[in-house]
Amino acid sequence: MIVRIDRLQTELPPPSDPDPAGAAAVQELMGGRFGEMSTLMNYTFQSFNFRNRQGARPFYDLIANIAAEEFGHIELVAATINTMLTGASPTDDGKAPSASLAKVKGVGNPHHFLAGGQGALPQDSNGRPWNGDYVFSSGDLVEDLTHNFFLETGARNNKLKVYEMVEHPAARALTGFLLVRGGVHQIAYARALERLTGADLTKLFPAPRIPTEKIPECKPHIDQGLHLKLFRFSPEDYREIVAVFNGPHPETGEELEVVDEAPEGFAPNDLPSQPAVFAPDYAPEEIAEIAARLRDEAGLPKKPTGVVANA
Amino acid sequence: MIVRIDRLQTELPPPSDPDPAGAAAVQELMGGRFGEMSTLMNYTFQSFNFRNRQGARPFYDLIANIAAEEFGHIELVAATINTMLTGASPTDDGKAPSASLAKVKGVGNPHHFLAGGQGALPQDSNGRPWNGDYVFSSGDLVEDLTHNFFLETGARNNKLKVYEMVEHPAARALTGFLLVRGGVHQIAYARALERLTGADLTKLFPAPRIPTEKIPECKPHIDQGLHLKLFRFSPEDYREIVAVFNGPHPETGEELEVVDEAPEGFAPNDLPSQPAVFAPDYAPEEIAEIAARLRDEAGLPKKPTGVVANA
Amino acid sequence: MIVRIDRLQTELPPPSDPDPAGAAAVQELMGGRFGEMSTLMNYTFQSFNFRNRQGARPFYDLIANIAAEEFGHIELVAATINTMLTGASPTDDGKAPSASLAKVKGVGNPHHFLAGGQGALPQDSNGRPWNGDYVFSSGDLVEDLTHNFFLETGARNNKLKVYEMVEHPAARALTGFLLVRGGVHQIAYARALERLTGADLTKLFPAPRIPTEKIPECKPHIDQGLHLKLFRFSPEDYREIVAVFNGPHPETGEELEVVDEAPEGFAPNDLPSQPAVFAPDYAPEEIAEIAARLRDEAGLPKKPTGVVANA
Amino acid sequence: MIVRIDRLQTELPPPSDPDPAGAAAVQELMGGRFGEMSTLMNYTFQSFNFRNRQGARPFYDLIANIAAEEFGHIELVAATINTMLTGASPTDDGKAPSASLAKVKGVGNPHHFLAGGQGALPQDSNGRPWNGDYVFSSGDLVEDLTHNFFLETGARNNKLKVYEMVEHPAARALTGFLLVRGGVHQIAYARALERLTGADLTKLFPAPRIPTEKIPECKPHIDQGLHLKLFRFSPEDYREIVAVFNGPHPETGEELEVVDEAPEGFAPNDLPSQPAVFAPDYAPEEIAEIAARLRDEAGLPKKPTGVVANA
Amino acid sequence: MIVRIDRLQTELPPPSDPDPAGAAAVQELMGGRFGEMSTLMNYTFQSFNFRNRQGARPFYDLIANIAAEEFGHIELVAATINTMLTGASPTDDGKAPSASLAKVKGVGNPHHFLAGGQGALPQDSNGRPWNGDYVFSSGDLVEDLTHNFFLETGARNNKLKVYEMVEHPAARALTGFLLVRGGVHQIAYARALERLTGADLTKLFPAPRIPTEKIPECKPHIDQGLHLKLFRFSPEDYREIVAVFNGPHPETGEELEVVDEAPEGFAPNDLPSQPAVFAPDYAPEEIAEIAARLRDEAGLPKKPTGVVANA
Amino acid sequence: MIVRIDRLQTELPPPSDPDPAGAAAVQELMGGRFGEMSTLMNYTFQSFNFRNRQGARPFYDLIANIAAEEFGHIELVAATINTMLTGASPTDDGKAPSASLAKVKGVGNPHHFLAGGQGALPQDSNGRPWNGDYVFSSGDLVEDLTHNFFLETGARNNKLKVYEMVEHPAARALTGFLLVRGGVHQIAYARALERLTGADLTKLFPAPRIPTEKIPECKPHIDQGLHLKLFRFSPEDYREIVAVFNGPHPETGEELEVVDEAPEGFAPNDLPSQPAVFAPDYAPEEIAEIAARLRDEAGLPKKPTGVVANA
Repeated sequence: MIVRIDRLQTELPPPSDPDPAGAAAVQELMGGRFGEMSTLMNYTFQSFNFRNRQGARPFYDLIANIAAEEFGHIELVAATINTMLTGASPTDDGKAPSASLAKVKGVGNPHHFLAGGQGALPQDSNGRPWNGDYVFSSGDLVEDLTHNFFLETGARNNKLKVYEMVEHPAARALTGFLLVRGGVHQIAYARALERLTGADLTKLFPAPRIPTEKIPECKPHIDQGLHLKLFRFSPEDYREIVAVFNGPHPETGEELEVVDEAPEGFAPNDLPSQPAVFAPDYAPEEIAEIAARLRDEAGLPKKPTGVVANA
Repeated sequence: MIVRIDRLQTELPPPSDPDPAGAAAVQELMGGRFGEMSTLMNYTFQSFNFRNRQGARPFYDLIANIAAEEFGHIELVAATINTMLTGASPTDDGKAPSASLAKVKGVGNPHHFLAGGQGALPQDSNGRPWNGDYVFSSGDLVEDLTHNFFLETGARNNKLKVYEMVEHPAARALTGFLLVRGGVHQIAYARALERLTGADLTKLFPAPRIPTEKIPECKPHIDQGLHLKLFRFSPEDYREIVAVFNGPHPETGEELEVVDEAPEGFAPNDLPSQPAVFAPDYAPEEIAEIAARLRDEAGLPKKPTGVVANA
Repeated sequence: MIVRIDRLQTELPPPSDPDPAGAAAVQELMGGRFGEMSTLMNYTFQSFNFRNRQGARPFYDLIANIAAEEFGHIELVAATINTMLTGASPTDDGKAPSASLAKVKGVGNPHHFLAGGQGALPQDSNGRPWNGDYVFSSGDLVEDLTHNFFLETGARNNKLKVYEMVEHPAARALTGFLLVRGGVHQIAYARALERLTGADLTKLFPAPRIPTEKIPECKPHIDQGLHLKLFRFSPEDYREIVAVFNGPHPETGEELEVVDEAPEGFAPNDLPSQPAVFAPDYAPEEIAEIAARLRDEAGLPKKPTGVVANA
Repeated sequence: MIVRIDRLQTELPPPSDPDPAGAAAVQELMGGRFGEMSTLMNYTFQSFNFRNRQGARPFYDLIANIAAEEFGHIELVAATINTMLTGASPTDDGKAPSASLAKVKGVGNPHHFLAGGQGALPQDSNGRPWNGDYVFSSGDLVEDLTHNFFLETGARNNKLKVYEMVEHPAARALTGFLLVRGGVHQIAYARALERLTGADLTKLFPAPRIPTEKIPECKPHIDQGLHLKLFRFSPEDYREIVAVFNGPHPETGEELEVVDEAPEGFAPNDLPSQPAVFAPDYAPEEIAEIAARLRDEAGLPKKPTGVVANA
Repeated sequence: MIVRIDRLQTELPPPSDPDPAGAAAVQELMGGRFGEMSTLMNYTFQSFNFRNRQGARPFYDLIANIAAEEFGHIELVAATINTMLTGASPTDDGKAPSASLAKVKGVGNPHHFLAGGQGALPQDSNGRPWNGDYVFSSGDLVEDLTHNFFLETGARNNKLKVYEMVEHPAARALTGFLLVRGGVHQIAYARALERLTGADLTKLFPAPRIPTEKIPECKPHIDQGLHLKLFRFSPEDYREIVAVFNGPHPETGEELEVVDEAPEGFAPNDLPSQPAVFAPDYAPEEIAEIAARLRDEAGLPKKPTGVVANA
Repeated sequence: MIVRIDRLQTELPPPSDPDPAGAAAVQELMGGRFGEMSTLMNYTFQSFNFRNRQGARPFYDLIANIAAEEFGHIELVAATINTMLTGASPTDDGKAPSASLAKVKGVGNPHHFLAGGQGALPQDSNGRPWNGDYVFSSGDLVEDLTHNFFLETGARNNKLKVYEMVEHPAARALTGFLLVRGGVHQIAYARALERLTGADLTKLFPAPRIPTEKIPECKPHIDQGLHLKLFRFSPEDYREIVAVFNGPHPETGEELEVVDEAPEGFAPNDLPSQPAVFAPDYAPEEIAEIAARLRDEAGLPKKPTGVVANA
């Protein structure tokens, strides 16, 4: 089971200039073979299918716990894409049927507008849907870990390239953060393999061969030590990750560290309505009115209870 | 973000006679168009993409909160499939390369054995992978809710039919539970639409037209009132679901109810190794030995900290 | 535009012993690369996309007209599959949730039961969906005709093999008829190519090299001359097919013939409800009651106006 | 069976400025999940698979009859795309191999030029093929109708957005017409559900919440009452649609109406050859010559018998 | 460029009892994610896309050369499947249309019979086609090698499991050989990574943890030293593989060895016609007659020049 | 088996101005339904699956031998795409993480940069992966040859259109060559069908109806007689192709000719590193250094042994 906390793992900037072509590229980090849907679902299925958990508890805990962090990553990628798409459908007088999407004809992923409400999709940068073939769950622990190390390496590659391709501030905030966190997972799986077999994979770091600290947007996170910490995303479980995630960081030599709770996180921005694509409605104020009434009838306070960054 | 709790939402029986053909059918509830991957990912993306959350908070909270419950459902389907596959690859002397899979040649989904370690896959009953095309996230609240009501109806259909097709005790425990919980979600989305538009969808219940209480395996859950309760799967968020999820149950007339915390859940079974498919290894005892040493070095207690039903 | 006539192009037997494994095989003739969805959609798109129709009218008319006949073929394949699936889900007392589908676990295409109501699907014999990649519409007339000749050849191959694989009377009635009609289309496209280029493709007949008249179930149709006739499936259009479809039949030497109207057809069987899969309902009698009332209110006669074979 | 009438359900303008990027977007209305291929094939399969037709005749007739109208819709979408692509490959001297497609490199859907002859494809706006997974045919009447209502709602959403994205006159003529006709189908399915269950879905109208009459290109069709009429697309069958399609229009309150024959329709434009893509040939005049000779030999009049708008 | 030598890399037994269900399972080794199509195409594309070949020649040579060997592996898998399918369609009197495929209804992959002529397909064990998403070619040498090591590990897993599932002598001959040769490639990529980074991956061997020599069908190949040899599959090129492929075998400690030419190979069996599926014809003797005449006219000797095992 | 020769079948120009949009279009010739992956894999599987080879030797030899030539074609398409992508990611100071891919955001196929290292992919011009459904291998010789003739016709169409769309010198060199060689294969399959059945398909030439000699880039190859020659791509095998490939060229009347060995070919260009996409590394000089050392240790000469055009 999970419980959900309505906060983001890192801070994202509010919407600025829309960038639909950039948003289409960022989709690779969502629904590509090496996107966050893949890391989330690979580790989730591997944890579901893990046999003899008690006998191999530290490894089970490691995979299951990283899976939990990955949910926060698909959430961040979605928030980034949504931020980048905000404002891409200007409405002149706000309402009349017009040509509000004419400017995005031929730009980016048309499904962002035609299928979605200027929102993220489980697709890659070519507009192809994520699919279950991207999940590897052989049940063989050494193989699954080998796969996971490879997957994180491919994911790091993709993040670096999206960084190079998309300069929008939300995309840069995203990739800066994910590069640091993905790096931790890359280390975690390498270390797990080392613990199981003795193979010293740390010599493969960094892969790709560009050090994370060279990327300006990674620096603040490194300064906070986020490149060293594995958070335990559970109140009671996954305590044995400490048995695997320890020893020196392969690049810096600093000691790796388990943090015994989830990070505090940041309130998300409440992104504005986009009436041209009916998100959340052609006339959003009507929904707001109904909602206010329902909240009132339920005895809730006048101010919405949800916490958002731009309240 | 999520935090993960290593417990199941309902109790599943321990492995008994393996049923690989049945496990292949149960995959429909995992990776089919109306499977739990679809409910999880539809509501998750809709919550990510929800614009003007503050203005429509009760609806946002409803979708985001149900998404959280659905994670527990893919977990249950996986556990069921894994239970049903346990024991399907007998090893004579336990080790030597032999024909341990000869009996399952032509039976069930070959990927359960060739690709996985007798484990669940993100595929449907035809062995086709779940894919992102199954996600509908238009951003238009009325449409998304209409979709969700339809999705839950299709899901209920599939659960009823898997119930009829597969008699294995784990499959029956699964469908008995999911029918009750899916029914609650069906009601929640119908009620949300009613609140927004006035349309009385409760007259469509039950859909399909077979009442849930006719199914023996649903009875214990109904007796506990699980057909009436929406759990709030978050310590602090999604408080406004009460503004939508209320009023009478469309079939029984009993009052719907919000429970202000996640259910306690049940410890999962630790399913035994299946060495013929190398899950978690050809020689699982070696991993256990390494794990014991690592746990010791990390100062963990001798007994694994993880809680399982069959410790 | 089309108008629809609720009759089948050939007579099918009523349901007898169900044959779900056979029905799964017959799906190849529906949704396979060379199935009737493919012939229908290839010719339909080619007719839609045909440029300079007036300049090449006889060829346009030929393709557009054959497309119309193909609709009747997907209808026949569906009716065959539905007939073969009828009776595959016995209900003991007719109603209570039980194990009505236990017998078909692991048999045939599970989607016939889990996704459908013992009904046909746009899938092939491997349970994979028909898709638009199967459509070839280059716009180049010589190429499109070359493709169509090849497509009909592949389709004839598939029909012959389904004939050999499935002995159910409905499947045999289907393949017996389709082999004769597909043969006419194969000739039509060969002749069109011959008219355009002079290439004598009739020397390729029969392809595969097994003569149609060797197949007992084809004989009655051949005796009626159905192997020689191209029906004009339009009240006013496609009159110029006579300019292409003429000359001797490549195998028998008999003169080909254009029939200036659609065939009369046969009333379809009204297949019985299958309540175990809720088709058309868990309690079909309730729907019948409502329908009777609605019909009454609309001033329709007591007896349903639809014409079925087994009224 | 069908018979085909070579006319369009609405009038389309002749080719003007080509718009390949727009044509790529319009593909969503053809091969997208909510495109016309989907409405056509969903209702077609549901009608094929309908069990106990006599007992539920008015509902069978409704679905089967709407399926017939949808064929005309894929025809219209194709004609629109073809119109928009006409002229996109200028040939300087008309013949010599040159760079006639250089201008469309990187613009729109490359398959319009590389795979097709500047012609429509069974693909969506991302260039992905339509596939059979988009068909829902559960056999359960209430579910199928719920699906159909949802499908029409998603289709209306897509039409509105394509309207906003593409200003080409052919696209606007198309969406203006389809919005009106799709609206009728949305009502038909809502009404059918109401008749069966009592649920008042008319309160969901319009969905999306933008009224059809606000769209200028819809107005002429509304003025002719096309938003109220369901045509019976069959000479003899589907007479019982009147038992379901009646009562007031959910938005205007006007009485719904069954028209007892197919609409007259409009002659299609004969779109000119595009020799750069060999449609219908690199040297179209040669085909025309052969066609003229064949027609002559067949005793057909000198003037082509086909009726086109621009004869 | 390649030149092709019509011999197999190992000896396969002649057809014996057909095993269509086994043949369906063996397809995983052809078109599965870790099948031989994948190894062939991954290394082929990586060699095509290799930049700065002169600067990294030994690594380029290694990948390009292994790609060449993999072609022989898809050839072997195909020959195995074809052998296993031979005899599965008995014809009573040899010719008349009958029910020659009735026995394989519901058995194995229906496409082996309906789409093919009892022949291999580019599909996996679930009947799903191999696709280009299975190719990883990042251009980053360390990543590509990491991938290749992982790919070979997954491939070894699949071979071991097909070994356990399918006892047919052809399948056992195949897996026995492929396990030995795949093991060499696994070592080659591990060694390449070690040479580039210093990481000692040999500690991961064997992966899965079952030693190859435990498998009886591998023994003869090991006795010939095939587990140590990398053949140079080129008359002039790829000479620098010796710079990487050297040092001790990770399991046995024996010295690895480059063989400076392709192995001699074995003549393939000429598999008999299967007239029920028209392979190569319904009346194969007619083709033989034509071939004999053509050969005669071309001045070829009376006896076919091709070398087959069972001439 | 194959042996591989590290040379190209035709000469390609060195990199000039990058053309990522053009490279995306050229992908159709790689991974499209009619691309070179399709010709390679169709003929390869048909040769693998050919039954009664001795009885039909000339036809087996023809298909098997053309398959071998096609490998050289996928190699050429890859080299072309790689050439066109070279230089598309300028690095300012060569190293620091920057925005080297900003210029290609929204241009061409994003996977060329995000998934690959500015390298070719097994995808089509819409970014969709090649898949095994594109392979037709019925086992029926007449059908397979009919298919192959059709496939080559579709392939010629695609090459002509890519020629028209992409003016980059590498693309023109590619299409000029492939049109000539594809033409030979088109003739070969037409002739084979003629030999088997008597059908004179040469009247369909040229298809599409634009003569190859009209294309300037084809002229040099025609001048060398490449339109007449079938090379035997095997040292010992496939000698019987002469029994089929003979007689006059359908367009020019010149005698067709079998060349008894593979062409000599041309050394490929060694394309430069693209460090912004880490191909072959972020710091390529480090790999070069390691390679030099390894080569030295292996006793190889100082100069790389590989032969490249731009050494």
